[in-house]
Amino acid sequence: MSKNFRIDYQREDRIGFQEVVFGASKTVKQLDAIIEDYQKNKKSTLITRVQEEKANVLCEKFKPNFYDPVSEILLVGEFPKELIGNEVAVLSGGTSDQFLVDEIYYTLLYLGRKATRYQDIGVAGVHRLMDNIEELKKFKVLVVVAGFEGALPTVVGGLLPQPIIAVPASIGYGIGKGGKVALYSMLSSCANGITVVNIDNGYGAAMAAFRIINN
Amino acid sequence: MSKNFRIDYQREDRIGFQEVVFGASKTVKQLDAIIEDYQKNKKSTLITRVQEEKANVLCEKFKPNFYDPVSEILLVGEFPKELIGNEVAVLSGGTSDQFLVDEIYYTLLYLGRKATRYQDIGVAGVHRLMDNIEELKKFKVLVVVAGFEGALPTVVGGLLPQPIIAVPASIGYGIGKGGKVALYSMLSSCANGITVVNIDNGYGAAMAAFRIINN
Amino acid sequence: MSKNFRIDYQREDRIGFQEVVFGASKTVKQLDAIIEDYQKNKKSTLITRVQEEKANVLCEKFKPNFYDPVSEILLVGEFPKELIGNEVAVLSGGTSDQFLVDEIYYTLLYLGRKATRYQDIGVAGVHRLMDNIEELKKFKVLVVVAGFEGALPTVVGGLLPQPIIAVPASIGYGIGKGGKVALYSMLSSCANGITVVNIDNGYGAAMAAFRIINN
Amino acid sequence: MSKNFRIDYQREDRIGFQEVVFGASKTVKQLDAIIEDYQKNKKSTLITRVQEEKANVLCEKFKPNFYDPVSEILLVGEFPKELIGNEVAVLSGGTSDQFLVDEIYYTLLYLGRKATRYQDIGVAGVHRLMDNIEELKKFKVLVVVAGFEGALPTVVGGLLPQPIIAVPASIGYGIGKGGKVALYSMLSSCANGITVVNIDNGYGAAMAAFRIINN
Amino acid sequence: MSKNFRIDYQREDRIGFQEVVFGASKTVKQLDAIIEDYQKNKKSTLITRVQEEKANVLCEKFKPNFYDPVSEILLVGEFPKELIGNEVAVLSGGTSDQFLVDEIYYTLLYLGRKATRYQDIGVAGVHRLMDNIEELKKFKVLVVVAGFEGALPTVVGGLLPQPIIAVPASIGYGIGKGGKVALYSMLSSCANGITVVNIDNGYGAAMAAFRIINN
Amino acid sequence: MSKNFRIDYQREDRIGFQEVVFGASKTVKQLDAIIEDYQKNKKSTLITRVQEEKANVLCEKFKPNFYDPVSEILLVGEFPKELIGNEVAVLSGGTSDQFLVDEIYYTLLYLGRKATRYQDIGVAGVHRLMDNIEELKKFKVLVVVAGFEGALPTVVGGLLPQPIIAVPASIGYGIGKGGKVALYSMLSSCANGITVVNIDNGYGAAMAAFRIINN
Amino acid sequence: MSKNFRIDYQREDRIGFQEVVFGASKTVKQLDAIIEDYQKNKKSTLITRVQEEKANVLCEKFKPNFYDPVSEILLVGEFPKELIGNEVAVLSGGTSDQFLVDEIYYTLLYLGRKATRYQDIGVAGVHRLMDNIEELKKFKVLVVVAGFEGALPTVVGGLLPQPIIAVPASIGYGIGKGGKVALYSMLSSCANGITVVNIDNGYGAAMAAFRIINN
Amino acid sequence: MSKNFRIDYQREDRIGFQEVVFGASKTVKQLDAIIEDYQKNKKSTLITRVQEEKANVLCEKFKPNFYDPVSEILLVGEFPKELIGNEVAVLSGGTSDQFLVDEIYYTLLYLGRKATRYQDIGVAGVHRLMDNIEELKKFKVLVVVAGFEGALPTVVGGLLPQPIIAVPASIGYGIGKGGKVALYSMLSSCANGITVVNIDNGYGAAMAAFRIINN
Repeated sequence: MSKNFRIDYQREDRIGFQEVVFGASKTVKQLDAIIEDYQKNKKSTLITRVQEEKANVLCEKFKPNFYDPVSEILLVGEFPKELIGNEVAVLSGGTSDQFLVDEIYYTLLYLGRKATRYQDIGVAGVHRLMDNIEELKKFKVLVVVAGFEGALPTVVGGLLPQPIIAVPASIGYGIGKGGKVALYSMLSSCANGITVVNIDNGYGAAMAAFRIINN
Repeated sequence: MSKNFRIDYQREDRIGFQEVVFGASKTVKQLDAIIEDYQKNKKSTLITRVQEEKANVLCEKFKPNFYDPVSEILLVGEFPKELIGNEVAVLSGGTSDQFLVDEIYYTLLYLGRKATRYQDIGVAGVHRLMDNIEELKKFKVLVVVAGFEGALPTVVGGLLPQPIIAVPASIGYGIGKGGKVALYSMLSSCANGITVVNIDNGYGAAMAAFRIINN
Repeated sequence: MSKNFRIDYQREDRIGFQEVVFGASKTVKQLDAIIEDYQKNKKSTLITRVQEEKANVLCEKFKPNFYDPVSEILLVGEFPKELIGNEVAVLSGGTSDQFLVDEIYYTLLYLGRKATRYQDIGVAGVHRLMDNIEELKKFKVLVVVAGFEGALPTVVGGLLPQPIIAVPASIGYGIGKGGKVALYSMLSSCANGITVVNIDNGYGAAMAAFRIINN
Repeated sequence: MSKNFRIDYQREDRIGFQEVVFGASKTVKQLDAIIEDYQKNKKSTLITRVQEEKANVLCEKFKPNFYDPVSEILLVGEFPKELIGNEVAVLSGGTSDQFLVDEIYYTLLYLGRKATRYQDIGVAGVHRLMDNIEELKKFKVLVVVAGFEGALPTVVGGLLPQPIIAVPASIGYGIGKGGKVALYSMLSSCANGITVVNIDNGYGAAMAAFRIINN
Repeated sequence: MSKNFRIDYQREDRIGFQEVVFGASKTVKQLDAIIEDYQKNKKSTLITRVQEEKANVLCEKFKPNFYDPVSEILLVGEFPKELIGNEVAVLSGGTSDQFLVDEIYYTLLYLGRKATRYQDIGVAGVHRLMDNIEELKKFKVLVVVAGFEGALPTVVGGLLPQPIIAVPASIGYGIGKGGKVALYSMLSSCANGITVVNIDNGYGAAMAAFRIINN
Repeated sequence: MSKNFRIDYQREDRIGFQEVVFGASKTVKQLDAIIEDYQKNKKSTLITRVQEEKANVLCEKFKPNFYDPVSEILLVGEFPKELIGNEVAVLSGGTSDQFLVDEIYYTLLYLGRKATRYQDIGVAGVHRLMDNIEELKKFKVLVVVAGFEGALPTVVGGLLPQPIIAVPASIGYGIGKGGKVALYSMLSSCANGITVVNIDNGYGAAMAAFRIINN
Repeated sequence: MSKNFRIDYQREDRIGFQEVVFGASKTVKQLDAIIEDYQKNKKSTLITRVQEEKANVLCEKFKPNFYDPVSEILLVGEFPKELIGNEVAVLSGGTSDQFLVDEIYYTLLYLGRKATRYQDIGVAGVHRLMDNIEELKKFKVLVVVAGFEGALPTVVGGLLPQPIIAVPASIGYGIGKGGKVALYSMLSSCANGITVVNIDNGYGAAMAAFRIINN
Repeated sequence: MSKNFRIDYQREDRIGFQEVVFGASKTVKQLDAIIEDYQKNKKSTLITRVQEEKANVLCEKFKPNFYDPVSEILLVGEFPKELIGNEVAVLSGGTSDQFLVDEIYYTLLYLGRKATRYQDIGVAGVHRLMDNIEELKKFKVLVVVAGFEGALPTVVGGLLPQPIIAVPASIGYGIGKGGKVALYSMLSSCANGITVVNIDNGYGAAMAAFRIINN
């Protein structure tokens, strides 16, 4: 059969960034064909949610590459040599959210933007946020990751004036399993002007931050 | 037809408080018959969620009485003359939750217990909570009401050591309409040892507080 | 009883805009007391979702005022005399979404920002969007309102590079009743970097746009 | 025990096509017995969703056969030698939906009908659809597959006049996991006259297309 | 303010039928402006779900008109004088579904197509369907309406070969309230090749039937 | 238009009872036509869930009749003169469930069967059930109504050996609003051999009891 | 640690059958201890949903035994030698439901009751049911199993007068995955007097049938 | 990369107990780093929901330790030598809930509090609860675990006066799978003053009990 996809190479001209590939539901064979297409067009390929076994096969073949097993993000090609600014802060409550914090961080890197990670800010010990308020004021966009009840963006949103992109994490159990409670909580926030992306959509949050700092 | 109910008058001996009547789904005629039964047994009657038009009819007939139109709570009889202690604090973010704060307050009054209301503590301006921390340490039980994303109990639970009873309020809209988001958020709280009651169950929260301070 | 609220007047210093009041679940009496408090502090009051009968009573007493019955937004006070820029475009498919388009428009006005409304862009006739692409490129933020299947932000997001704030409208019926389908659809969008607010949260979308253009 | 099934061999006379077997929840042993029954009646057997390990065992025994591991469709027997027409176009956004595109394609083949696949039409780059509009006008039925927010049938439905059968794919994550968002979005479409089948029901979509072109 | 809508008058050229107006969430004033726009373009206007009080006001002003209070469908203008064919049968179980049967019937009339209604076919007395099988075989499309458990399309689909468009009705109570059970049941049907539209979307079902018979 | 229904008068021969009419979603006009049809066939008509205003109009015209405003059940005709047996006990916790207890009671009466109501058995005071165990052992079928958490059938099912038909009532609020919690709880009961009907389906529960005692 | 369970050996005296063990969530070690307890009391043990690996270990140790891998039911002990009657018919559409048909069949066997299985009755070919109507009239109770849209009990209920226990099977996919659609459909059935048990609760359905034929 | 967490060591001073670690979503490497941090601060570490393979690796390295494979709770360090009181009773229906009963028991042990387990109290044989009523009156707090329909706390709440913390267990199947039915049932309980924690949140229930007995 002939090629069953057609990469949208004009996207970068239209909206400022290339098409990125969603890896979770594609086979190694399908990903291989897609990467080859990008390479023929002399482009690097960013693929999100590539399970480790699949990534290993692809990294064997395609060089150079970067793969982070925690966030399952795969770059076939190289990050830009020169990074612009340090305008985005990524906040989270700790270790369980690291896979998302890293997906956001590496996506911004791929887009040529440096970011800073604050992973020690949990709402059950609110002093950890208070200690960082002055430093956080320096950023242009705040991306705030939270699982469980997802309260962190609300508290941040009441204290800081910047654009806030809330990212619900699929961390939790019982009624909070899968991240829906965090998502709904962020959407219902009594703090004003918070916007939200899909559960575990670290990649989309990075793109949203990029849309702000690139315009 | 004969009487279609049987009040559980032994409940007070078993568990320390009388049967209370859920008024929302009963007709005036049904409530009238129930109140007469209590009166024959020389007991006052507490009825929750009595819509105003129904309350007006009943208050005309049964004296003395107390009716609060905001919380829709009706007492046929009198509050105890002597109130014990001031062990329960009822916290909320503001005006929209008043109907629940009052249901909790008057239920405790009916049980012979004084409580203190803190209605100006909203999580979008967390300093308002911080200002009251020392004063709040003096209470034995904290009942915390919140609608929308329901984050207040989480923040309180990270700062104060007492038993915390979280009460989700049916205040919100869109995905938060009806109070389920607040409920789920409280159940998923990353703060430890918080317990939760049903949406708008101010009456049950007061009973839970009473079970703690009465044992 | 004493005052059961405490306006967060420091919010403007912290995050650049005042506390706004959610009117739907408050009584006229409660709103009256709140407005008086603002007036004592020499501030205008923006109240969202004030049902028309309640607004009429309040407008009788408090002058000057502005009330829009379609969006149910009430301003006690005056819009700023000088408006800055014209950086926000508000897009929607037509008449049914007008209540949200107007809530966004008037909230931005209250914040001193001009916006432009494009209400004739429906995804079932995609040429109407295509005709406006060049003009839309001039704005700094795009706020996109849609009910039913909520596909408009996806199509816009594939064509334009700016920050996009998607606002699901509670317009629809059957499985789409209440706006959840539009909300979920926007969150699941295959277009990258779109952020979303709660169903019918035009006010929050305006605040989110303001956070972008004010920082 | 005696045979625990009874194939509905009269179905072809009644409604124009044979009973097809749902393979996912049946054991190899059960499928084996069913295929033998078909063979006794000199019929080929189409089985959907046969996991690869099960298919391998069955293909060893029953010849001739056709098995496609992407769509997990198994034909014991042969496709018709002569194919009628080319009246159905199957549209999708790309690689992740291939399992459904193929299930539709092979089911139509089994029914003696040729179809054409357009797998490069994603709504986030709407020009790819626009480029094919004239060609698509030649088909009698359009089957449109989409995961995530499921917007493709809406855009197609606004541009083309044919019967449109929308097929939601279980591709997505977070709130879109499992395909319900795509399903609900297609049902709520503001484009008129679109009909929908169950999530991942490529087989049913092919049958629906067949009902149209066969009558 | 200027006009906040733009009718898609090119739709008829593109897909064979005009834009129809969803009346439920529009005010009389908004509908009035829309009808005037159609009249300037010398077109009749079909509006679905117009509540009776709103229809009365509009019918007073705009003549000729047709309004059916059961289905709440309003035509400003006249039905086509010449009707083509009698290719569509509309089946339902009885009186409660009449509002949908009529919405389908009148929409087809507006499109210039005659249809036949069979409203006495309930699955709890399956002989009523059996009695009509031969007659039903003569139609080109079957539109099948059902509320409660929505089983009728399944039984029809097992007996008749034509395209079947299933329409779930919001008739039922308890777990079946609002029509979701009928919708889900139709989507899960074990009968093959049935397609489904949104709950109460009689109008869309008629359009889907039209797409089949017009192509 | 001609008659849009066809009563299934053969049902009594097939399954032992006549077709009963669901009144909630039908207009007075529709009900009037249906009753006339029954009368032409010399049958009495049982209609469930007839709102009071509608019942009043119908009772004016059709005599003899019986209407119970609590359960909203309407009989046009007379209850059988001779009642068979007293084999069914209907249990509930009290006043709020009376509308269902009565629907069950009158439906059985219409079917010629006497029943006994026990409305004072609430699970929060389990002694009230214990006091009646010996008496309850005499019945052939137990129909158990409960709202809120729906625990009563579980406790009854652990103590008594008869067939138990559990009827969830739409009594409750918050997460329990609408009766789904009671329904799910009854379906998940750890007591064995309990069967369940739809929320508020007192009529169906009576029919299920009748199927047992009539066979 | 001491024994963490206490078998309810009095249950047989109270309600006519012994306590049965739910095996799915218990470890081999826990099941072993429970079986030993039954054996000390000279009772056979029926355990439902015992995964095959666990059953193999237990069958090695405890003799005599019976294990059916399709329904995962395990009897430690022997079925009664003498079986009473043949009063229960178990109906289903075919092979996918066999695990439930067998759970019902073996549970009745354990209770000393013979049953008859009709596994070839699918609603998509309704003639298969019609062919068996006369034979089915002889049974006292009908247990009807169905997955997907769960329509079979509705059709049966309109044709036969006996008590009908509907059992939803977790067979289906997409919106029907897990059996909820079948469950809801059965609860919403327009056929009268059908009762329902939990999804996949074949064991409970057998117990419900036993309660009818044993009283 | 630097440390991606910051333990809240001040929590003990603020609220009386240390930060506990949620182990389920953390890797061995992440847990290892966290334990080392605790050890540098000379604290023992309690980690909940540590899967057995992960626990084995950690126990190899860190001594002394305690790991319970049923509840998956891991203590790196030692339980307090001296235990205070015996104020908490943990009630459940039997073996399937043991994982929660043990999580509660060991968490209290870690907090220096003895508890007593009553695992033989199932609501389907209510006499087992009745037999223990007098003994249960001696405790200060009752923690009540239940899966399936979750009725046990309701029955206990009607008989005993102490604070009751209800813990829904994820034991059940069909509609009750995952524990939501037990959760909703407990929240809707008609017994007064019961509070609830998240599904399977044994740890949180122990903390809630500790907040009561420690204040």
